[in-house]
Amino acid sequence: MPSKRTMKMFLDDLASSSPAPGGGSVAAFSGALGAALTSMVCHLTIGKKKYAEVEADLKKILAQSEELRSTFTTLVDKDTTAFNKVMEAYGLPKDTDPQKALRSAAIREATKEATLVPLEVMKHCIDALALAQEAASRGNVNSISDAGVSALMLHAACESAALNVRINLNALDDSDFVGWKTDEVASLLSTSRMMLDEIQAIVEEKMKND
Amino acid sequence: MPSKRTMKMFLDDLASSSPAPGGGSVAAFSGALGAALTSMVCHLTIGKKKYAEVEADLKKILAQSEELRSTFTTLVDKDTTAFNKVMEAYGLPKDTDPQKALRSAAIREATKEATLVPLEVMKHCIDALALAQEAASRGNVNSISDAGVSALMLHAACESAALNVRINLNALDDSDFVGWKTDEVASLLSTSRMMLDEIQAIVEEKMKND
Repeated sequence: MPSKRTMKMFLDDLASSSPAPGGGSVAAFSGALGAALTSMVCHLTIGKKKYAEVEADLKKILAQSEELRSTFTTLVDKDTTAFNKVMEAYGLPKDTDPQKALRSAAIREATKEATLVPLEVMKHCIDALALAQEAASRGNVNSISDAGVSALMLHAACESAALNVRINLNALDDSDFVGWKTDEVASLLSTSRMMLDEIQAIVEEKMKND
Repeated sequence: MPSKRTMKMFLDDLASSSPAPGGGSVAAFSGALGAALTSMVCHLTIGKKKYAEVEADLKKILAQSEELRSTFTTLVDKDTTAFNKVMEAYGLPKDTDPQKALRSAAIREATKEATLVPLEVMKHCIDALALAQEAASRGNVNSISDAGVSALMLHAACESAALNVRINLNALDDSDFVGWKTDEVASLLSTSRMMLDEIQAIVEEKMKND
């Protein structure tokens, strides 16, 4: 569980000569940071008289952002595990032809799995950006910069996860799978970029009027 | 020290109804994540025969990125402290004219300080991006996606810190200070954007040839 590690331990593990945790886990953790900030904006809005009209909506957003925060936290370690399985597959014996065939199949399967974890991160980023947008639009204006940082961390998480999907796809020769996933990455990235732009426009507007 | 807190505790504190830690601390922590990944790329390059020529340079980059990682980690809490001082100043008594004057001065000073912490984060992001660029250009090509994620986290840190500088500047009426710092933020942001673009171009090129 990443949750029980201290922040220093996580940063030390990242910085170390072990390739995992690496960029894929950081992408998921950045998603958790973004979701946590959306939750904070909700908490700082709920219970305030000025925002009584939106309170019920903000409570729903909070429940969803807390759920996503938990999902992102789980994905931090899931990415490390998936990467380690790829490394294990590369370490299988390759002395005989049957061994070589088994090893190739194991590498292929593990690499596909390692592609799916960051792809899952990307999809959750889109869901979390939708919540950040609600928080920016309707949440406490005093927390508008926090809603902005939430969106920045979620988009960075999405772009970071995309690099991790693509580097794994590079190692696969299943052209149908690669083609399909490449298109999916491009589509998720452009959605994320568009949502960030929209949220930044809301943030700019509210910061001007603050 | 943020370093002794578990990741779950930090995320819980962020998500809570306490306004600090908030986006400013996340900006600094995102910088630490970016610096840690540059360190990892250095570690995965140093000692490899194929990269013997660049080993001395990568060792220098590693020393600097580890220094920056430590600085960013310190700034996580420094931002929270600066924010709490602003809140304390707002809580000062304002019953008499001398009290009002003292309170206004205290708010002004605390707000200026709260502006300087994220500005410091932004400056360190530029330094860290220069190291990420070296790591992307000359580090182990197998870690190219990690160098890319390093740059994404550092630019997100810079943009996040910028929002925190600006929201604090909004509360100040010292037009010289505000004007000067606004220009500084704009210049740091455009440098960060340019450096991210350059690093992303290197990453794209290397991912194509992988």
